[in-house]
Amino acid sequence: MTTIQVQGTVAAGFETVRAEFATTAVAEGAGPAGAQLVVYVHGRQVVDLWFGDEVTGETLTGVYSSTKGAAAIVMAMLVQDAILDLDEPVAAGWPEFSAAGKGEITLRDVLTHRSGVIGVDGGFTADELADDAVIAARLATQRPYWKPGSAIGYGAFTEFAILGEVVRRSTGRSLQDIFDQRVRIPYALDLYLGLPESEEHRYREIEPGILSPDELATYWSGGPGPHSITGIGYGLNSNPPLDQVALSNTRRVRALGPTSCGGVGNARGLAGLYTAAVHGLNGRPPLLKPDTLGEFTMLHAAGTDLVAGSDKHYMLGFQAKGWQYPFLSARTFGHDGSAGSEAFADPHSGITFGYIRRRFSSTWSYPEHHRLAAAVHHAASAT
Amino acid sequence: MTTIQVQGTVAAGFETVRAEFATTAVAEGAGPAGAQLVVYVHGRQVVDLWFGDEVTGETLTGVYSSTKGAAAIVMAMLVQDAILDLDEPVAAGWPEFSAAGKGEITLRDVLTHRSGVIGVDGGFTADELADDAVIAARLATQRPYWKPGSAIGYGAFTEFAILGEVVRRSTGRSLQDIFDQRVRIPYALDLYLGLPESEEHRYREIEPGILSPDELATYWSGGPGPHSITGIGYGLNSNPPLDQVALSNTRRVRALGPTSCGGVGNARGLAGLYTAAVHGLNGRPPLLKPDTLGEFTMLHAAGTDLVAGSDKHYMLGFQAKGWQYPFLSARTFGHDGSAGSEAFADPHSGITFGYIRRRFSSTWSYPEHHRLAAAVHHAASAT
Amino acid sequence: MTTIQVQGTVAAGFETVRAEFATTAVAEGAGPAGAQLVVYVHGRQVVDLWFGDEVTGETLTGVYSSTKGAAAIVMAMLVQDAILDLDEPVAAGWPEFSAAGKGEITLRDVLTHRSGVIGVDGGFTADELADDAVIAARLATQRPYWKPGSAIGYGAFTEFAILGEVVRRSTGRSLQDIFDQRVRIPYALDLYLGLPESEEHRYREIEPGILSPDELATYWSGGPGPHSITGIGYGLNSNPPLDQVALSNTRRVRALGPTSCGGVGNARGLAGLYTAAVHGLNGRPPLLKPDTLGEFTMLHAAGTDLVAGSDKHYMLGFQAKGWQYPFLSARTFGHDGSAGSEAFADPHSGITFGYIRRRFSSTWSYPEHHRLAAAVHHAASAT
Repeated sequence: MTTIQVQGTVAAGFETVRAEFATTAVAEGAGPAGAQLVVYVHGRQVVDLWFGDEVTGETLTGVYSSTKGAAAIVMAMLVQDAILDLDEPVAAGWPEFSAAGKGEITLRDVLTHRSGVIGVDGGFTADELADDAVIAARLATQRPYWKPGSAIGYGAFTEFAILGEVVRRSTGRSLQDIFDQRVRIPYALDLYLGLPESEEHRYREIEPGILSPDELATYWSGGPGPHSITGIGYGLNSNPPLDQVALSNTRRVRALGPTSCGGVGNARGLAGLYTAAVHGLNGRPPLLKPDTLGEFTMLHAAGTDLVAGSDKHYMLGFQAKGWQYPFLSARTFGHDGSAGSEAFADPHSGITFGYIRRRFSSTWSYPEHHRLAAAVHHAASAT
Repeated sequence: MTTIQVQGTVAAGFETVRAEFATTAVAEGAGPAGAQLVVYVHGRQVVDLWFGDEVTGETLTGVYSSTKGAAAIVMAMLVQDAILDLDEPVAAGWPEFSAAGKGEITLRDVLTHRSGVIGVDGGFTADELADDAVIAARLATQRPYWKPGSAIGYGAFTEFAILGEVVRRSTGRSLQDIFDQRVRIPYALDLYLGLPESEEHRYREIEPGILSPDELATYWSGGPGPHSITGIGYGLNSNPPLDQVALSNTRRVRALGPTSCGGVGNARGLAGLYTAAVHGLNGRPPLLKPDTLGEFTMLHAAGTDLVAGSDKHYMLGFQAKGWQYPFLSARTFGHDGSAGSEAFADPHSGITFGYIRRRFSSTWSYPEHHRLAAAVHHAASAT
Repeated sequence: MTTIQVQGTVAAGFETVRAEFATTAVAEGAGPAGAQLVVYVHGRQVVDLWFGDEVTGETLTGVYSSTKGAAAIVMAMLVQDAILDLDEPVAAGWPEFSAAGKGEITLRDVLTHRSGVIGVDGGFTADELADDAVIAARLATQRPYWKPGSAIGYGAFTEFAILGEVVRRSTGRSLQDIFDQRVRIPYALDLYLGLPESEEHRYREIEPGILSPDELATYWSGGPGPHSITGIGYGLNSNPPLDQVALSNTRRVRALGPTSCGGVGNARGLAGLYTAAVHGLNGRPPLLKPDTLGEFTMLHAAGTDLVAGSDKHYMLGFQAKGWQYPFLSARTFGHDGSAGSEAFADPHSGITFGYIRRRFSSTWSYPEHHRLAAAVHHAASAT
């Protein structure tokens, strides 16, 4: 019999969240690999929990696409500062990008997964995926996989590399550097787009799902091939196909912190990020003003995602979480990551949520997200 | 054993419609609350039926969103007269509306449920929903719930309030007043956007569905919350949430006749409205010329409705009824209402159809609409 | 017991394709009516098979909408030569077409099934459908069935007639004539858009599916009526409704070779066409340069097809075959035809594929396409 030892604290009224965290973790088999959950309500921390053999509240691991939430907040800040214009073509400051029918793609198109630039013919090497600048250079010559604007599809490794290049050319600094200077350091967030060597001791490796390589091959065999839009979007059209587990476990990826997938952090960092964005944190003001928040949390794209193959709802750079958690408000925004991290804010209820796990699901699905979010919502509504 | 006493008349060849009306009414449980059905074919009345303890052919009740059909016909007339331009921004004559990213929303966007302006943060009070001008004033400052043009979603209480404000500013008159002077009075229609005190004696109250408040709460519990796009679109984000039954049963609502939901009428009025629009009535010419009819009955929006949560097909202001009744023609246009009213015209077959019931379904679905429309189509095809 | 005698040859490594062709043909009941399959890989013919009582490798029959693949390649060549501009309105050189709200419809809209011009009120006679110029003249005055650009829907008999009229007005020649002079004759393809009398002896008639007229009526009875968008798109709104079997079996149709459906050919011709387009053939260079191929094989339209009533994916003039055969690449392009012909090229794997059968399926579905394509892909991947 497995005993899960949940550690940490919850505020009065949030005991049910602690129970759900324990139950869910067992049920989902995150097991000894561990997980963390941190929740704020209107800027007050109400949940700070963790479990796992090697995990504490301070443990860091790979957050994968939850990184995009941090990058999207930086984009929002640069738009807020009028440094970037959402309706400007990407190619305006980056002429090479206009090749192969990409001249009219705007920042807004990229942020809403409408660009069609979801990969490259022949695929990216694992080495290339560590470095946004290299990704951007390869994307510049690529023809979109659909007529820009005509459809939506999630470019798992491409969109924030494009935006990062725009940021670099507009500001002379990397998106990662801006995040560090304007967000991570002043708000004291445990979330890194580029993990310093000095923090490496807190990193715990991402673990694979329980499927064997053979089972994984079977999982994919009936579905889209490596050169389908799905395969290209998820980096399966390279040789060898992308190993997502290895990605975060590679020091070079962690050091460079690519904005699409290379962030390292913990649940405190993720929940803190969204708290800082909406409510402010540590005595500092909210990163985003109401109008910026309004624009970035407006739904922009709804429908079949050509890469994911299912219905998706996107805001500017964020996933529209109200469609995933319909008990939350229409303005709920956030981003999850493929190993099971999840982070969001609901400006209406005041909930900000950060969750991390170290082990991939074998099916890329994490039902505990819904149950945890529901438990938090229920507790927050009652208090 | 329930005996339903159907009253009224049908033309030769439409006896099957009478039978279907009786059968359906029993099956659907509209019961003693009653219903009415009126059909014309190429301008000739062929069905005029009713049943119900307090119902005659002249009884009036709330038609809810079938009101929008009347409002859409007025919009078409104003476009026909070149008083309004479908591709003009709403804000052109109403500068306050341009706030929060609404500056480019056109009349066509609003009429096709693309504006994203489907409610207001915090919700409308029941009192506010009685008055289009008040609704419009609150909408002016609201940020859209999706990027205008990027998706479709039914704004149950907002769209015709927006258009009503445009009409008021363009013509100096309310949409209701124009309807009265140019449509209701000259065509002698028993359909009111603003019911005079003198006709109140014919009004019979709308009755709730058979679900108890508890059952209703259960019905909603698994679905979208009050602050979801669905909740906002249906007015559930106010405190208390909107009581649709009470809405029409409130004298102030009936007196002001808001264009989205406040119409009062009977089946004769609804069928007469669409007959007047397409074929003319009472010796008067059709309200709409062929080009106007062609433009307004062209499908404009198809796909997942973000509010309704299902596939919808809209023309300019009208529901595209050919998708609901595929045996009818592609140009069939009309609008139903939430208590179960239904009205449409098929310009190809010449059918115009008006149906009213007094009692809400417990599931917001009215399968008798399909069966009655099919019976009418079958009878009309055979004659 | 039926014995199917498959004739023809396969290259070493493609024996499994021969086996699948035999098995499939029996299973699908193509039976003695016969079928042909021809495959190239990177320009080398590896499969050339046929069976059927009256069928040889040289037999010709109607390819129906696979004709559109030939027409789309001609369109690509004219764009490549800068004779046509995809983003020019159709009405630019054909002012009559601007009637009834069609003034802004571009060539690209038509090629991607976005125009809404999918038929005419009252329908086409069988005689009219033989002649692209007559079809075009009727379409010029028709109002679109949806707001151009707002949805996609397959105009089975209209789109290439529109484009053919544009070609005629731009070049002084018919699309058929350009195909003959620049494609069929120089590349020696057995595929005719206008079958000369001298080749008639090789034509074998298309045979109906196994459903009786009564069964066919039942098949349609639950679905869209003749005046629905589906009915209009498939030519069912004429009196009598279109008989697709008779269409190709009519000498006048074969003689004029309407670009939407009137092509006559065999599997060698279809596979040869796509080989010529991508790889070159018979010592001649590819018809399409990489940039042209890139533009025309970019996905342009994805979603519910209002005519077909199901999800479709279209490139410029072509069906995006990667969605039908997900093991092939995202750039796979081609077109099938309603009697069961299928043709495509996958530029990534180098496969070009041509298949023809003489007998309609009773359900308009041809599952052997998928199995044959999979067998070809498997064999090509292994060699």
